[in-house]
Amino acid sequence: MNGLLPNTNPPYYAVIFTSRHTGADQDEYRATARHMDDLARQQPGYLGINSTTSAPLSETGEWATITVSYWRAEEDVRNWKQVVAHRAAQRRGRETWYARYATQVCCVERHYQFDREGQEAVIV
Amino acid sequence: MNGLLPNTNPPYYAVIFTSRHTGADQDEYRATARHMDDLARQQPGYLGINSTTSAPLSETGEWATITVSYWRAEEDVRNWKQVVAHRAAQRRGRETWYARYATQVCCVERHYQFDREGQEAVIV
Repeated sequence: MNGLLPNTNPPYYAVIFTSRHTGADQDEYRATARHMDDLARQQPGYLGINSTTSAPLSETGEWATITVSYWRAEEDVRNWKQVVAHRAAQRRGRETWYARYATQVCCVERHYQFDREGQEAVIV
Repeated sequence: MNGLLPNTNPPYYAVIFTSRHTGADQDEYRATARHMDDLARQQPGYLGINSTTSAPLSETGEWATITVSYWRAEEDVRNWKQVVAHRAAQRRGRETWYARYATQVCCVERHYQFDREGQEAVIV
Protein backbone atom coordinates (compact mmCIF):
# COMPACT_ATOMS: atom_id res chain seq x y z
CA MET A 1 0.00 0.00 0.00
CA ASN A 2 3.00 2.27 0.01
CA GLY A 3 6.64 2.09 -0.96
CA LEU A 4 7.32 -0.06 2.11
CA LEU A 5 7.04 -3.82 1.50
CA PRO A 6 3.93 -5.36 3.08
CA ASN A 7 4.26 -7.09 6.44
CA THR A 8 7.30 -5.08 7.44
CA ASN A 9 7.35 -4.47 11.17
CA PRO A 10 9.60 -2.24 13.28
CA PRO A 11 12.38 -2.05 14.01
CA TYR A 12 13.73 -1.42 10.52
CA TYR A 13 15.81 1.38 8.98
CA ALA A 14 14.88 4.46 6.98
CA VAL A 15 17.31 6.66 5.05
CA ILE A 16 15.90 10.15 4.50
CA PHE A 17 17.59 11.93 1.60
CA THR A 18 16.51 15.56 1.25
CA SER A 19 17.99 17.59 -1.61
CA ARG A 20 17.82 20.86 -3.47
CA HIS A 21 18.82 20.74 -7.12
CA THR A 22 21.05 23.10 -9.06
CA GLY A 23 18.98 22.43 -12.20
CA ALA A 24 22.08 21.28 -14.12
CA ASP A 25 21.99 18.07 -16.18
CA GLN A 26 18.52 17.08 -15.01
CA ASP A 27 18.07 14.47 -17.76
CA GLU A 28 21.21 12.72 -16.58
CA TYR A 29 20.01 13.09 -12.99
CA ARG A 30 16.64 11.51 -13.73
CA ALA A 31 18.18 8.61 -15.65
CA THR A 32 20.65 7.99 -12.82
CA ALA A 33 17.91 8.25 -10.17
CA ARG A 34 15.92 5.58 -12.01
CA HIS A 35 18.98 3.39 -12.30
CA MET A 36 19.74 3.82 -8.58
CA ASP A 37 16.15 2.83 -7.74
CA ASP A 38 16.57 -0.36 -9.77
CA LEU A 39 19.93 -1.09 -8.20
CA ALA A 40 18.70 -0.43 -4.64
CA ARG A 41 15.91 -2.93 -5.16
CA GLN A 42 18.48 -5.64 -5.81
CA GLN A 43 20.41 -5.05 -2.57
CA PRO A 44 20.15 -7.30 0.49
CA GLY A 45 17.74 -5.92 3.06
CA TYR A 46 15.94 -3.53 0.68
CA LEU A 47 12.38 -2.88 1.92
CA GLY A 48 11.11 -0.16 -0.40
CA ILE A 49 11.35 3.46 -1.46
CA ASN A 50 9.20 6.60 -1.63
CA SER A 51 10.13 9.83 -3.36
CA THR A 52 8.53 13.18 -4.12
CA THR A 53 9.87 16.30 -5.83
CA SER A 54 8.27 19.69 -5.73
CA ALA A 55 8.19 23.29 -4.80
CA PRO A 56 8.03 23.51 -1.01
CA LEU A 57 4.76 23.21 0.87
CA SER A 58 5.69 25.27 3.89
CA GLU A 59 7.71 28.43 4.42
CA THR A 60 10.58 26.52 5.96
CA GLY A 61 10.38 23.50 3.68
CA GLU A 62 12.83 24.81 1.16
CA TRP A 63 13.94 21.47 -0.23
CA ALA A 64 12.97 20.17 -3.62
CA THR A 65 13.20 16.38 -3.30
CA ILE A 66 12.67 13.99 -0.42
CA THR A 67 13.46 10.33 -0.99
CA VAL A 68 13.06 7.77 1.77
CA SER A 69 14.45 4.27 1.33
CA TYR A 70 13.77 1.44 3.77
CA TRP A 71 16.14 -1.30 4.89
CA ARG A 72 16.01 -4.32 7.17
CA ALA A 73 19.16 -3.51 9.14
CA GLU A 74 21.73 -0.81 9.65
CA GLU A 75 24.34 -3.03 7.96
CA ASP A 76 22.20 -3.03 4.79
CA VAL A 77 22.27 0.78 4.79
CA ARG A 78 26.07 0.80 5.09
CA ASN A 79 26.45 -1.74 2.31
CA TRP A 80 24.19 0.17 -0.09
CA LYS A 81 26.15 3.36 0.55
CA GLN A 82 29.32 1.59 -0.58
CA VAL A 83 28.01 0.02 -3.82
CA VAL A 84 30.37 1.26 -6.53
CA ALA A 85 27.75 2.62 -8.94
CA HIS A 86 25.99 4.31 -6.02
CA ARG A 87 29.23 5.93 -4.88
CA ALA A 88 29.75 7.25 -8.41
CA ALA A 89 26.23 8.70 -8.41
CA GLN A 90 26.84 10.36 -5.03
CA ARG A 91 30.01 11.96 -6.38
CA ARG A 92 28.24 13.12 -9.56
CA GLY A 93 25.53 14.60 -7.39
CA ARG A 94 28.03 16.66 -5.43
CA GLU A 95 29.78 17.77 -8.63
CA THR A 96 26.67 18.74 -10.56
CA TRP A 97 23.08 18.00 -9.56
CA TYR A 98 22.76 19.14 -5.98
CA ALA A 99 23.03 22.59 -4.49
CA ARG A 100 22.81 20.85 -1.13
CA TYR A 101 21.52 17.73 0.52
CA ALA A 102 21.15 15.99 3.83
CA THR A 103 21.06 12.28 4.52
CA GLN A 104 19.67 10.92 7.77
CA VAL A 105 20.00 7.30 8.83
CA CYS A 106 17.21 6.36 11.21
CA CYS A 107 15.86 3.41 13.09
CA VAL A 108 12.06 3.20 12.69
CA GLU A 109 10.70 2.42 16.13
CA ARG A 110 6.98 2.37 15.33
CA HIS A 111 4.63 3.11 12.44
CA TYR A 112 0.96 3.80 11.73
CA GLN A 113 -0.95 3.29 8.53
CA PHE A 114 -4.32 4.36 7.20
CA ASP A 115 -5.99 3.16 4.01
CA ARG A 116 -9.39 4.54 3.03
CA GLU A 117 -10.21 1.39 1.04
CA GLY A 118 -9.07 -0.88 3.83
CA GLN A 119 -9.36 -0.35 7.51
CA GLU A 120 -8.85 2.19 10.23
CA ALA A 121 -5.41 3.47 11.12
CA VAL A 122 -3.31 0.63 12.46
CA ILE A 123 -1.08 1.44 15.39
CA VAL A 124 1.95 -0.83 15.59
CA MET B 1 20.77 25.05 5.49
CA ASN B 2 17.72 22.79 5.48
CA GLY B 3 14.53 22.36 7.47
CA LEU B 4 16.54 20.99 10.39
CA LEU B 5 17.69 23.60 12.91
CA PRO B 6 21.44 24.33 12.74
CA ASN B 7 23.74 22.60 15.21
CA THR B 8 21.38 19.70 15.74
CA ASN B 9 23.30 16.51 16.38
CA PRO B 10 22.11 12.91 16.60
CA PRO B 11 20.42 11.28 18.28
CA TYR B 12 17.16 13.13 17.56
CA TYR B 13 13.78 12.05 16.20
CA ALA B 14 12.25 12.20 12.74
CA VAL B 15 8.58 11.63 11.93
CA ILE B 16 8.10 10.60 8.29
CA PHE B 17 4.56 11.25 7.08
CA THR B 18 3.90 9.88 3.59
CA SER B 19 0.46 10.44 2.08
CA ARG B 20 -1.62 10.14 -1.03
CA HIS B 21 -4.42 12.63 -1.41
CA THR B 22 -8.01 12.08 -2.48
CA GLY B 23 -8.05 15.53 -4.06
CA ALA B 24 -11.08 16.56 -1.96
CA ASP B 25 -11.10 19.92 -0.16
CA GLN B 26 -7.54 20.78 -1.08
CA ASP B 27 -7.90 24.46 -0.14
CA GLU B 28 -8.94 23.45 3.35
CA TYR B 29 -6.09 20.92 3.41
CA ARG B 30 -3.49 23.52 2.46
CA ALA B 31 -4.74 26.03 4.99
CA THR B 32 -4.71 23.39 7.71
CA ALA B 33 -1.23 22.17 6.69
CA ARG B 34 0.09 25.73 7.04
CA HIS B 35 -1.60 26.08 10.40
CA MET B 36 -0.15 22.75 11.59
CA ASP B 37 3.33 23.89 10.49
CA ASP B 38 2.94 27.04 12.58
CA LEU B 39 1.63 25.08 15.54
CA ALA B 40 4.37 22.43 15.35
CA ARG B 41 6.99 25.17 15.45
CA GLN B 42 5.65 26.27 18.84
CA GLN B 43 5.91 22.81 20.43
CA PRO B 44 8.63 21.80 22.88
CA GLY B 45 11.43 19.90 21.17
CA TYR B 46 10.57 21.02 17.63
CA LEU B 47 13.69 20.94 15.42
CA GLY B 48 12.33 21.66 11.94
CA ILE B 49 10.28 20.39 9.02
CA ASN B 50 10.71 19.52 5.33
CA SER B 51 7.89 18.74 2.91
CA THR B 52 7.48 18.02 -0.79
CA THR B 53 4.43 17.13 -2.86
CA SER B 54 4.51 15.72 -6.36
CA ALA B 55 3.86 13.05 -8.87
CA PRO B 56 6.13 10.12 -8.02
CA LEU B 57 9.73 10.01 -9.17
CA SER B 58 10.10 6.26 -9.33
CA GLU B 59 7.81 3.43 -10.39
CA THR B 60 7.24 2.35 -6.82
CA GLY B 61 7.10 5.82 -5.33
CA GLU B 62 3.37 6.15 -5.60
CA TRP B 63 2.90 8.67 -2.83
CA ALA B 64 2.07 12.29 -3.38
CA THR B 65 3.42 14.04 -0.26
CA ILE B 66 6.31 13.35 2.06
CA THR B 67 6.65 15.52 5.16
CA VAL B 68 9.44 14.96 7.67
CA SER B 69 9.34 16.75 11.02
CA TYR B 70 12.24 16.68 13.47
CA TRP B 71 12.09 16.52 17.26
CA ARG B 72 14.55 16.48 20.13
CA ALA B 73 13.08 13.45 21.91
CA GLU B 74 10.54 10.70 21.50
CA GLU B 75 8.40 12.31 24.21
CA ASP B 76 8.15 15.47 22.06
CA VAL B 77 6.78 13.35 19.20
CA ARG B 78 4.15 11.81 21.47
CA ASN B 79 3.13 15.20 22.85
CA TRP B 80 2.74 16.75 19.37
CA LYS B 81 0.56 13.84 18.26
CA GLN B 82 -1.82 14.61 21.14
CA VAL B 83 -2.18 18.38 20.66
CA VAL B 84 -5.93 18.96 20.29
CA ALA B 85 -5.84 20.94 17.02
CA HIS B 86 -3.44 18.39 15.58
CA ARG B 87 -5.73 15.51 16.54
CA ALA B 88 -8.61 17.31 14.84
CA ALA B 89 -6.50 17.71 11.67
CA GLN B 90 -5.57 14.02 11.74
CA ARG B 91 -9.25 13.09 12.00
CA ARG B 92 -10.20 15.46 9.17
CA GLY B 93 -7.42 13.92 7.08
CA ARG B 94 -8.85 10.44 7.52
CA GLU B 95 -12.38 11.67 6.77
CA THR B 96 -11.53 13.68 3.68
CA TRP B 97 -8.05 14.55 2.44
CA TYR B 98 -6.11 11.30 2.42
CA ALA B 99 -6.66 8.17 0.39
CA ARG B 100 -3.94 6.64 2.54
CA TYR B 101 -0.98 7.54 4.64
CA ALA B 102 1.83 6.10 6.70
CA THR B 103 3.57 7.65 9.69
CA GLN B 104 6.95 6.40 10.85
CA VAL B 105 8.56 7.47 14.10
CA CYS B 106 12.34 7.13 13.84
CA CYS B 107 15.44 7.79 15.87
CA VAL B 108 18.07 9.51 13.72
CA GLU B 109 21.35 7.79 14.52
CA ARG B 110 23.62 9.72 12.16
CA HIS B 111 23.43 12.31 9.40
CA TYR B 112 25.49 13.73 6.52
CA GLN B 113 25.22 17.12 4.89
CA PHE B 114 26.57 18.70 1.75
CA ASP B 115 26.36 22.35 0.76
CA ARG B 116 27.84 23.53 -2.54
CA GLU B 117 28.34 27.04 -1.18
CA GLY B 118 29.91 25.82 1.98
CA GLN B 119 32.08 22.82 2.48
CA GLU B 120 32.49 19.18 1.64
CA ALA B 121 30.05 16.61 2.89
CA VAL B 122 30.19 16.44 6.66
CA ILE B 123 29.94 13.02 8.20
CA VAL B 124 28.61 13.06 11.75
